[in-house]
Amino acid sequence: MTPPLWFDDLQVGMAFRTPGATLTDDAIIRFAMEWDYQTFHADAHAARQSLFGGLVASGLHTLVMSFRLYNEASIVRGTALAGTGIENLRWLRPARPGDTLSVEVTITGLRPSSRPDRGHVRQRFETRDQNGELLLRFEVTSIVARDPCGSPVVGSADQAPS
Amino acid sequence: MTPPLWFDDLQVGMAFRTPGATLTDDAIIRFAMEWDYQTFHADAHAARQSLFGGLVASGLHTLVMSFRLYNEASIVRGTALAGTGIENLRWLRPARPGDTLSVEVTITGLRPSSRPDRGHVRQRFETRDQNGELLLRFEVTSIVARDPCGSPVVGSADQAPS
Repeated sequence: MTPPLWFDDLQVGMAFRTPGATLTDDAIIRFAMEWDYQTFHADAHAARQSLFGGLVASGLHTLVMSFRLYNEASIVRGTALAGTGIENLRWLRPARPGDTLSVEVTITGLRPSSRPDRGHVRQRFETRDQNGELLLRFEVTSIVARDPCGSPVVGSADQAPS
Repeated sequence: MTPPLWFDDLQVGMAFRTPGATLTDDAIIRFAMEWDYQTFHADAHAARQSLFGGLVASGLHTLVMSFRLYNEASIVRGTALAGTGIENLRWLRPARPGDTLSVEVTITGLRPSSRPDRGHVRQRFETRDQNGELLLRFEVTSIVARDPCGSPVVGSADQAPS
């Protein structure tokens, strides 16, 4: 297992791909029954009359599944302190029973915090099916810890006037 | 039960409040174990050393819970055809065991589609705790059906030149 990276180790453009997981009709229906009941997510027969022509996963399901896969491969697992937001989320194509989802994650922004022990990270998630079709994309902002043994930051004793 | 509204019945500024639901430590830990394992969501002891000082719900948990509550009270239940996106999501404060969440939903945008049977709706969600503190806010875009028996739309036979 790769050790988690600190904020200081990250660079814009770094990217990684998660492993995959297959959506079953059972998982789609159970998620819908718990969190997002819509006939086209829960009722295979009624779904045929919907805009989708058949059962499709809740967009919330593909979203949380994307994070679940992200956690498997995350380069900041253990150093990520908190999520702060999501921007520009688009559900572009529905996910159907039997589809296998995986996520390509790219670091798109890095900004040190005013607090010396952390920084703000922006990552783009692109969730695709087994054919490479883009189902879902969004950007996540989060707070990642800085290396407590790393280079001194501005304002540290090393740089104070003597 | 109020009958669902069509796109044509909606107006910018319409608002409603969902009923509430209480987050338990059991629900927080189970959600984290399934979708978003972080020590501060799943391990009550380790959570004391985290940024939060104790167990807090995954932001994905409070997000899907907001949608679950929305579905209880939605004025477009049955006429909503699909979700298309989320914008400007901010997790502002953590939700802790024992907190009761409810959501205030406001229609912030309406745009007819180029297809005569549907329109685009934007709704702002504000999820608060029992003290009225804002935990989470975001905007959702979705597609809602137009009334098939409603006023004729531009291009219909009634308005064609005779």
